[in-house]
Amino acid sequence: MASEKPLAAVTCTAPVNIAVIKYWGKRDEELVLPINSSLSVTLHQDQLKTTTTAVISKDFTEDRIWLNGREEDMGQPRLQACLRERNSWDGDPLPSSLSCKVHVASVNNFPTAAGLASSAAGYACLAYTLARVYGVESDLSEVARRGSGSACRSLYGGFVEWQMGEQADGKDSIARQVAPESHWPELRVLILVVSAEKKLTGSTVGMRASVETSPLLRFRAESVVPARMAEMARCIQERDFPSFAQLTMKDSNQFHATCLDTFPPISYLNAMSWRIIHLVHRFNAHHGDTKVAYTFDAGPNAVIFTLDDTVAEFVAAVRHSFPPGSNEDTLEPVKAARMLTPAPCSLGVFSCVVGPGPQILDDPCAHLLGPDGLPKPAA
Amino acid sequence: MASEKPLAAVTCTAPVNIAVIKYWGKRDEELVLPINSSLSVTLHQDQLKTTTTAVISKDFTEDRIWLNGREEDMGQPRLQACLRERNSWDGDPLPSSLSCKVHVASVNNFPTAAGLASSAAGYACLAYTLARVYGVESDLSEVARRGSGSACRSLYGGFVEWQMGEQADGKDSIARQVAPESHWPELRVLILVVSAEKKLTGSTVGMRASVETSPLLRFRAESVVPARMAEMARCIQERDFPSFAQLTMKDSNQFHATCLDTFPPISYLNAMSWRIIHLVHRFNAHHGDTKVAYTFDAGPNAVIFTLDDTVAEFVAAVRHSFPPGSNEDTLEPVKAARMLTPAPCSLGVFSCVVGPGPQILDDPCAHLLGPDGLPKPAA
Repeated sequence: MASEKPLAAVTCTAPVNIAVIKYWGKRDEELVLPINSSLSVTLHQDQLKTTTTAVISKDFTEDRIWLNGREEDMGQPRLQACLRERNSWDGDPLPSSLSCKVHVASVNNFPTAAGLASSAAGYACLAYTLARVYGVESDLSEVARRGSGSACRSLYGGFVEWQMGEQADGKDSIARQVAPESHWPELRVLILVVSAEKKLTGSTVGMRASVETSPLLRFRAESVVPARMAEMARCIQERDFPSFAQLTMKDSNQFHATCLDTFPPISYLNAMSWRIIHLVHRFNAHHGDTKVAYTFDAGPNAVIFTLDDTVAEFVAAVRHSFPPGSNEDTLEPVKAARMLTPAPCSLGVFSCVVGPGPQILDDPCAHLLGPDGLPKPAA
Repeated sequence: MASEKPLAAVTCTAPVNIAVIKYWGKRDEELVLPINSSLSVTLHQDQLKTTTTAVISKDFTEDRIWLNGREEDMGQPRLQACLRERNSWDGDPLPSSLSCKVHVASVNNFPTAAGLASSAAGYACLAYTLARVYGVESDLSEVARRGSGSACRSLYGGFVEWQMGEQADGKDSIARQVAPESHWPELRVLILVVSAEKKLTGSTVGMRASVETSPLLRFRAESVVPARMAEMARCIQERDFPSFAQLTMKDSNQFHATCLDTFPPISYLNAMSWRIIHLVHRFNAHHGDTKVAYTFDAGPNAVIFTLDDTVAEFVAAVRHSFPPGSNEDTLEPVKAARMLTPAPCSLGVFSCVVGPGPQILDDPCAHLLGPDGLPKPAA
């Protein structure tokens, strides 16, 4: 039985981020270095977040981790890569705690049915919590990135860019905030859940195939993205919604185009995704103005950007276009207090705003692990 | 009533062609000059063809045309562009017939339900028949091209390339045969009819939007297609089926990728198209060899290339994957003697071989127009 006196226990939360300039393709698989820079919007943690507790103790004989209540194998390469970073952390003096083993527990507050990639929030939270529990001050981009590339963007709130960097060791491949969460208070993010099914082709496998086989992906990374990064930063700085929205849609489409140019081709969009794409373009055409944008990651679910004054009208249009029963995908009833349209709609719709980066929870009651370093019964 | 003695009456047939290196995008809308070269396979006319009769007479007071039995407006810009070419034809002496007006009738022998773009065969046949009836010898690429770009490739049998050319006047934008129809007798072409519905975005409008908005299309045209044209010609010369098949699939996918990179995005592939794509890749993976290839034009119907020894097994796999009722698109029963699988299959399947270019029909009974220059009752 573990000691009743852990050296330290820390609980933190971290947000989900939605890329508006997409990351797709690594130039270094081991270090998780991307072939292009990317830019994302951090979602508020009221709606979606990962919570992670880390406990260190001289009495622990091994690193252990529980994800959503179930113990997982700590030998997984991504987890190992994150933990290995402990050894590269520097400090003067180096905290003696770094020799301690760690117990970690992590939970998501959003249902699996939301169909959202939780790995970015998860690895950002792990990196942030590990740094806190070990008492080290360091740029955490590398730790988070080694777990999941886009996780480094969840280390900051607001609008965040992940600079691809140029160095072979990846030291300059880091995330940085472009604008804080308070910068654009009117911006809204809707998540339209088309399908909660696991995708056919995972991101890691998919982007490796694209890098190896798509001539268009290389061109996109080298010749299209750099100008788009600058333009997207300008749109955000100037709160230019129509330009922000158009570039967001174009970049989502181009990412999916490179998936189609991959051999064999990858398709993450399904018939429902296309119906949403057409709905957004019809909605904008009807208004004679770009009032709504879609973006799709490596799956069929849509993320919608709009402004607060347009949410009600667009959600009504979604309800009208997707009445109950109109979704051929088997979508488990999405049950969550945060859902915007519990009915009548065949899509799950979550409404979010832009939010801050990782947070430390001061309340000891928030810890997911007890003083013995094992999950609390309630967690 | 028109004279009973026309100056001349000629009836010709022309084939459908299937591009394996795709044409998408014009650099000159008026002259129909493409942004890249393309390469196609000419289908045998036993299965699919257009038949056109042209009659000229000093007594005709205007040009007239009947398509599939219905008179159409001769003022259509594409028809006008073809007919205008009469005036640019040269000869020494110039046939006096060129001052005559012409009556034209044209029919397709394949059901509309085949969902095939008939414009290539149609305009190739028109150009060929006009040249014959007026008695001029000239490169017909320009006449056919002005009607529909890819029509110039239907002027030859076998394997045909349309060289994009460099001149501003388009004189070097011409079709030429890469290999005759006898070159690769084992090659088979299957047409899988997914949907007979008219496509949402026509080719002319679609390619204009792509040229104006897709950064990937420009790159494809300038930096990808030239090497692919050379490689495809090599595959054909050497009858290297696996390489031919892979490049065919890659080029189809890249064309559709540029459609997705267009803004707003264009999607010609539907859920059934994707099921066929996955079936082909599974079939090839099962054999550990590339035995079948798909290609899709601006619509959801698949064209399959394979060799004669694989047709039966692949058609069985299609029947198994698409039992009756598995096609959500409303597909009118495709009735044609040439259909390979009348049942049980929810796709129409036509089997074709490679064939020759346009043919002159010597039998006067084949004329679709009577000596009075009007459609025969039976036509």
